[in-house]
Amino acid sequence: MIEFSEKSQQLQQQLLNFMDEHIYPNEKAYAEYMHTTANRWAPVPLMDELKEKAKAAGLWNLFVPPSLSEFVDHDGLTNFEYAPLAEIMGRVIWAPEVFNCNAPDTGNMEVFMKYGNEQQQEQWLTPLLNGDIRSSYLMTEPQVACSDATNVELSIIQEGNEWVLNGKKWFITNAMYERTAIFIVMGKSDPDNENRHKQQTQVLVPKDTAGVDIVRPLTTLGYDDAPLGHAEVHFNNVRVPLENVLLGEGRGFEIAQGRLGPGRIHHCMRLIGIGQRSLELACERAATRTTFGRTLSQHQSVREDISKCYSELEMARLLVLKTCSRMDEVGPKGAIDLIAASKTTVPLLIQNLIDRCMQIHGAGGLTEDFCMAEGFNYARWCRQADGPDQVHQMALGKIIINRYTDS
Amino acid sequence: MIEFSEKSQQLQQQLLNFMDEHIYPNEKAYAEYMHTTANRWAPVPLMDELKEKAKAAGLWNLFVPPSLSEFVDHDGLTNFEYAPLAEIMGRVIWAPEVFNCNAPDTGNMEVFMKYGNEQQQEQWLTPLLNGDIRSSYLMTEPQVACSDATNVELSIIQEGNEWVLNGKKWFITNAMYERTAIFIVMGKSDPDNENRHKQQTQVLVPKDTAGVDIVRPLTTLGYDDAPLGHAEVHFNNVRVPLENVLLGEGRGFEIAQGRLGPGRIHHCMRLIGIGQRSLELACERAATRTTFGRTLSQHQSVREDISKCYSELEMARLLVLKTCSRMDEVGPKGAIDLIAASKTTVPLLIQNLIDRCMQIHGAGGLTEDFCMAEGFNYARWCRQADGPDQVHQMALGKIIINRYTDS
Amino acid sequence: MIEFSEKSQQLQQQLLNFMDEHIYPNEKAYAEYMHTTANRWAPVPLMDELKEKAKAAGLWNLFVPPSLSEFVDHDGLTNFEYAPLAEIMGRVIWAPEVFNCNAPDTGNMEVFMKYGNEQQQEQWLTPLLNGDIRSSYLMTEPQVACSDATNVELSIIQEGNEWVLNGKKWFITNAMYERTAIFIVMGKSDPDNENRHKQQTQVLVPKDTAGVDIVRPLTTLGYDDAPLGHAEVHFNNVRVPLENVLLGEGRGFEIAQGRLGPGRIHHCMRLIGIGQRSLELACERAATRTTFGRTLSQHQSVREDISKCYSELEMARLLVLKTCSRMDEVGPKGAIDLIAASKTTVPLLIQNLIDRCMQIHGAGGLTEDFCMAEGFNYARWCRQADGPDQVHQMALGKIIINRYTDS
Amino acid sequence: MIEFSEKSQQLQQQLLNFMDEHIYPNEKAYAEYMHTTANRWAPVPLMDELKEKAKAAGLWNLFVPPSLSEFVDHDGLTNFEYAPLAEIMGRVIWAPEVFNCNAPDTGNMEVFMKYGNEQQQEQWLTPLLNGDIRSSYLMTEPQVACSDATNVELSIIQEGNEWVLNGKKWFITNAMYERTAIFIVMGKSDPDNENRHKQQTQVLVPKDTAGVDIVRPLTTLGYDDAPLGHAEVHFNNVRVPLENVLLGEGRGFEIAQGRLGPGRIHHCMRLIGIGQRSLELACERAATRTTFGRTLSQHQSVREDISKCYSELEMARLLVLKTCSRMDEVGPKGAIDLIAASKTTVPLLIQNLIDRCMQIHGAGGLTEDFCMAEGFNYARWCRQADGPDQVHQMALGKIIINRYTDS
Repeated sequence: MIEFSEKSQQLQQQLLNFMDEHIYPNEKAYAEYMHTTANRWAPVPLMDELKEKAKAAGLWNLFVPPSLSEFVDHDGLTNFEYAPLAEIMGRVIWAPEVFNCNAPDTGNMEVFMKYGNEQQQEQWLTPLLNGDIRSSYLMTEPQVACSDATNVELSIIQEGNEWVLNGKKWFITNAMYERTAIFIVMGKSDPDNENRHKQQTQVLVPKDTAGVDIVRPLTTLGYDDAPLGHAEVHFNNVRVPLENVLLGEGRGFEIAQGRLGPGRIHHCMRLIGIGQRSLELACERAATRTTFGRTLSQHQSVREDISKCYSELEMARLLVLKTCSRMDEVGPKGAIDLIAASKTTVPLLIQNLIDRCMQIHGAGGLTEDFCMAEGFNYARWCRQADGPDQVHQMALGKIIINRYTDS
Repeated sequence: MIEFSEKSQQLQQQLLNFMDEHIYPNEKAYAEYMHTTANRWAPVPLMDELKEKAKAAGLWNLFVPPSLSEFVDHDGLTNFEYAPLAEIMGRVIWAPEVFNCNAPDTGNMEVFMKYGNEQQQEQWLTPLLNGDIRSSYLMTEPQVACSDATNVELSIIQEGNEWVLNGKKWFITNAMYERTAIFIVMGKSDPDNENRHKQQTQVLVPKDTAGVDIVRPLTTLGYDDAPLGHAEVHFNNVRVPLENVLLGEGRGFEIAQGRLGPGRIHHCMRLIGIGQRSLELACERAATRTTFGRTLSQHQSVREDISKCYSELEMARLLVLKTCSRMDEVGPKGAIDLIAASKTTVPLLIQNLIDRCMQIHGAGGLTEDFCMAEGFNYARWCRQADGPDQVHQMALGKIIINRYTDS
Repeated sequence: MIEFSEKSQQLQQQLLNFMDEHIYPNEKAYAEYMHTTANRWAPVPLMDELKEKAKAAGLWNLFVPPSLSEFVDHDGLTNFEYAPLAEIMGRVIWAPEVFNCNAPDTGNMEVFMKYGNEQQQEQWLTPLLNGDIRSSYLMTEPQVACSDATNVELSIIQEGNEWVLNGKKWFITNAMYERTAIFIVMGKSDPDNENRHKQQTQVLVPKDTAGVDIVRPLTTLGYDDAPLGHAEVHFNNVRVPLENVLLGEGRGFEIAQGRLGPGRIHHCMRLIGIGQRSLELACERAATRTTFGRTLSQHQSVREDISKCYSELEMARLLVLKTCSRMDEVGPKGAIDLIAASKTTVPLLIQNLIDRCMQIHGAGGLTEDFCMAEGFNYARWCRQADGPDQVHQMALGKIIINRYTDS
Repeated sequence: MIEFSEKSQQLQQQLLNFMDEHIYPNEKAYAEYMHTTANRWAPVPLMDELKEKAKAAGLWNLFVPPSLSEFVDHDGLTNFEYAPLAEIMGRVIWAPEVFNCNAPDTGNMEVFMKYGNEQQQEQWLTPLLNGDIRSSYLMTEPQVACSDATNVELSIIQEGNEWVLNGKKWFITNAMYERTAIFIVMGKSDPDNENRHKQQTQVLVPKDTAGVDIVRPLTTLGYDDAPLGHAEVHFNNVRVPLENVLLGEGRGFEIAQGRLGPGRIHHCMRLIGIGQRSLELACERAATRTTFGRTLSQHQSVREDISKCYSELEMARLLVLKTCSRMDEVGPKGAIDLIAASKTTVPLLIQNLIDRCMQIHGAGGLTEDFCMAEGFNYARWCRQADGPDQVHQMALGKIIINRYTDS
């Protein structure tokens, strides 16, 4: 039923080899570097070495779809072709960056490709595609619920030939990262516009602009996700030239809508990777750990847990693949039901799955000795990313009710 | 990603039409007949009318796979082609029989096709394929756990040119049904054989043989599933001629193994049908019922429930389809992991899904006014059919642990 | 921490003895009678025998609280004292009636005690307390959500010196029972009253009044709960004298409010009884059934399930006891939060608990050979009784939010 | 039903006042200190100030039971009296230390009181009771499952008048803390003893003894729990005098058994505190946050979640209180079933409860801006503390099965 193109299959094999040769053997070194470095937000030398190798191996910018293939060397990969690749990368939490395929840069690069003008692409997209700089997407605000994107309050006001920004953002991934150079900022430029979807504008703000205040890193369940990080960022009379607008004044909501579909699904793909790896670790543990005179694998409830993990993982992966396939056929808008189903199902499922796999590992399962706890945090965090699951369930529920009734 | 053959698509459409024209409009009449009939185990006249119509429409014996197409007019349908058809039939609990596609007759017919000799096929398979008689498969015993088929204790002893059967069986679907003519009985003929898988034999016992005692119907959650029923059956010195053996002495286990794969998956397909219908009913209810000044559909938690039902149903359906696809490619043995995953996941998932849909309906949801309670019972019952889920999880867990370890 | 009064302890012991001597030994006979009787709605002779014995043993009308002790021989039992007694009775689904402690008669008798005038008490309460007749409480309607009692639509109109009733009710427990003589009917007498809580009136309607149409019994999960039953009842110009009003015109809502607290908790008490018994059955099964060469009790996941059942049962019982204790101290109104917590927690918990215990029993666990399936149905049904859980959760959630905020 | 002694009630009030005056107002300061301090393992000056205040207020060493009251000024508090106090302290993750009531020091002090000789008490217990030093209990080892305490492998061998220790321990709480002075080390001194419960010995090892290697801090879900920390500790030919043995050679298992009961329950008490606080925070959030034009509290599913949290918290609290009450009556051994029920139920329940409360808070709920994420980690971690829940469920399941069967 599931058949990947030859191209995708070939890349899967190359990627698997790359993981075996370059990623897994470096997991310990990477972790130790992060534990001992004096500056958790600086670029990691090992990462840079690995990026060069990935680039050389042709495993670079694989997230770019066929419709945007002009920007890359390969001909573009459909969501369906990319899904198994993202799953493989997702097996190590920091691996996607090695292949220039990490969030939020992938989504941001897509924004530049689709909505940036030539000058903007040259200045920011080119170094992003090259992995030289990183970027942030500034949507979420502490004081309002940005799951409804029309709620953003950060003010963007035109003064002369400048935009003036004032307001607060948080959960800004990459903002702590020293390599990050450019912010895409969503704000409200025309709060009185009758059309609620025309009130927003997105502008480009170089990170080092005066008035940009990176207030602090945020943690989720104790993780700071360094070196990328999630930051609170304040804007105090930040000024950028008018040409820094993206697409045009009042078109911020349109960009936001266009950005979200694939991003959510990329998260799900990667989560399946870390879920699969957790299952494999649990199997190894079950086969080798002895308690009460028998290996864990001989205990019925351990086998039941492993069995559940396998079944759930199969279902989650199939749902994501179907979503990808639909997106490839009819675009994100036409797949909105499946995207919402994936977004509200997969992270929670993976969280619970990893919880089970950690439990099989005893206390050690919760530590940094395994990748599971970080994966657990990633899954938990995704239940809030792009808005809490509940908001998407509300929307999906409405769609389904309408589908089966005349109302 | 999911593409059905033209043949399957055409049959889906015909079946949908048939349901609209002949099945749904008769649901009330069927229910009322069953409520008022003096004999719940006699054939239902309405059923016979509908069977003729189904036969005439070419919607007959669709469960037969290509490898056994010699027995039917159509060329056989793969599991993957059949899955959406079984799902449609499953939307009404008694509908599969209309199309001669109900359990356990489908499995029994497969047994006759694969393991019966010419005489046996002529005598029993032909009228079964024609829908004239029904059959039972007698495996489960009250006193031992028959999830391990080697445990059966009913004794089958050769005396002269006869087999003599003594023992007890229960949960024998169809045994109460007056139309049922033939029993396929699994028993132990050689308890001392060193090979535990050679101790069993299956013999054919006409239901009206002396010594066969249909002790009583059994209920599950209050349902007797009339007119098919689930019965307790005792064998007191039941004698049948030697030629009534199926395949040969000592080959009972082999037959049992060959029978089970598709049967489990057929249950899952039908359960998805009743799950899907429950979801649709819940949507209708949500759109039309008003409480506290708003329709149910405007309550957030109702939408969340609908959303969960939709997502879970998608996942369950995809898992079953992948299992079918794998079975078609490599046979049931090669798909043992996915069959176990479906068997241990889908019934429980559908039980919980229907529970939610019933709850949205208020107290009425639990009654016979809707098909949900019966579907709930069917799902609950399937968690025990062919052995409790736990037994299959044990086996699956072991397979998965071995897959990811060297042990 | 939990200390019962000497009186309650003594009654517990007597009741345990009574169960051992008279109830358990008759379970099979009772079941067989119900399976074979030609009239499932007629009084069961065995029940009448047992009732005499219970009366003789002083185990009669134990539900009556101290505040209403004038109506009974004993001095009344607090909710806290009664809880363990109701739990013991609840171990057999039909046992509460033996002690004249079954729903809905207990609640109806309380209504008569609290709101009936002398004549009404003499005519209906006396034979009810004596167990000679049964009663129904007619609240729920098929077309509106009666979890909000102000929604009832059955019309009660004064014409001359009569009330004229028109409308439909359903889920009327006891209405099928031939012994039932009196209906307490809630309806709308003044739909235009500005005060929504003054629009309703309750009147007494003898079951044999002209125009009362017992349309049909309803099943839940396949159970008809004979001989009590749950019926759909229609009122077509039913006329009763004016003096049949309870408490007074426009005071129907007031009565409804006063009736519900203890009733919900009585259900919870009984459910804990059937839950406890299911756990004990599961333990017996685990200790005696052998699969794969070991008793079930040696399988880790069986022990985990038993362990969960025990822990959950402890918690549910404690919650109910605390609720009782609070009700005894401050009345049902002051305990509204705990009553809602019990109502929305215990039935679901017991449903899942019994589901697990049934699963440990294999297919047999779903049949009438054990009391579990009926208990499962009782628990499931209670999630709708007195309104769906969700409605009570809404109310409780609001109370708790207000408790911890200034709003 | 639940009535606390006057003494307990008075202390509850004092403690509530102390929390209001001294703890909550300092939460932000404490967090900022920990974020900015150069040495996360050094004593926190603020903690020392607060300890002095708590001591002055008589809120000191409240964990000490009446049987050990000779060691403290107050007359000892029963488990039942102490439970609500520990719950209050548990509302802030670092608060228990303020009152000298934090794990593992409480358990260690009990060990010294019960099993230490006069000299050992003078040297170590006195400064512990005074809060001057801290202690660790070294049981868990990385390579074996120490949920079965007989499995410990660290070797303790007598050489001349010294014990020589070799082996590895991990998850040693407090070991990172610079204030920690003394280790209680469990090891195997007589591996060939036929009695598996006589093979172990516990010895006192001052933390600064040569050969003691604090290898590294461990994190759980990203938390290092500084300044206490959980460490991996290696012993390389560590030598201590013979008199450092606790209770006597071969009596290590006996001490381990005696230590565990109250410890597990203390964790549960504190978890209920953090659960209760999370619920209160969720209520505040629900009342004040607006999405889609309504406060969260007006959304049905938010109220349902709040309602569930309240009900579950009631049940968890009651279970713990009953366990305490039983322990007070018959000792930990007689309450082994309830202790296991609490240990395997409360942490998981609180984990899920906090998960829900965090979700109501949006992405911010996962950060250090609230106490919930840390509480979540604490609950998750407790599912492994003193052995994984599964091990305790196995034991409890066995007890319950035996209770209801003759076997």
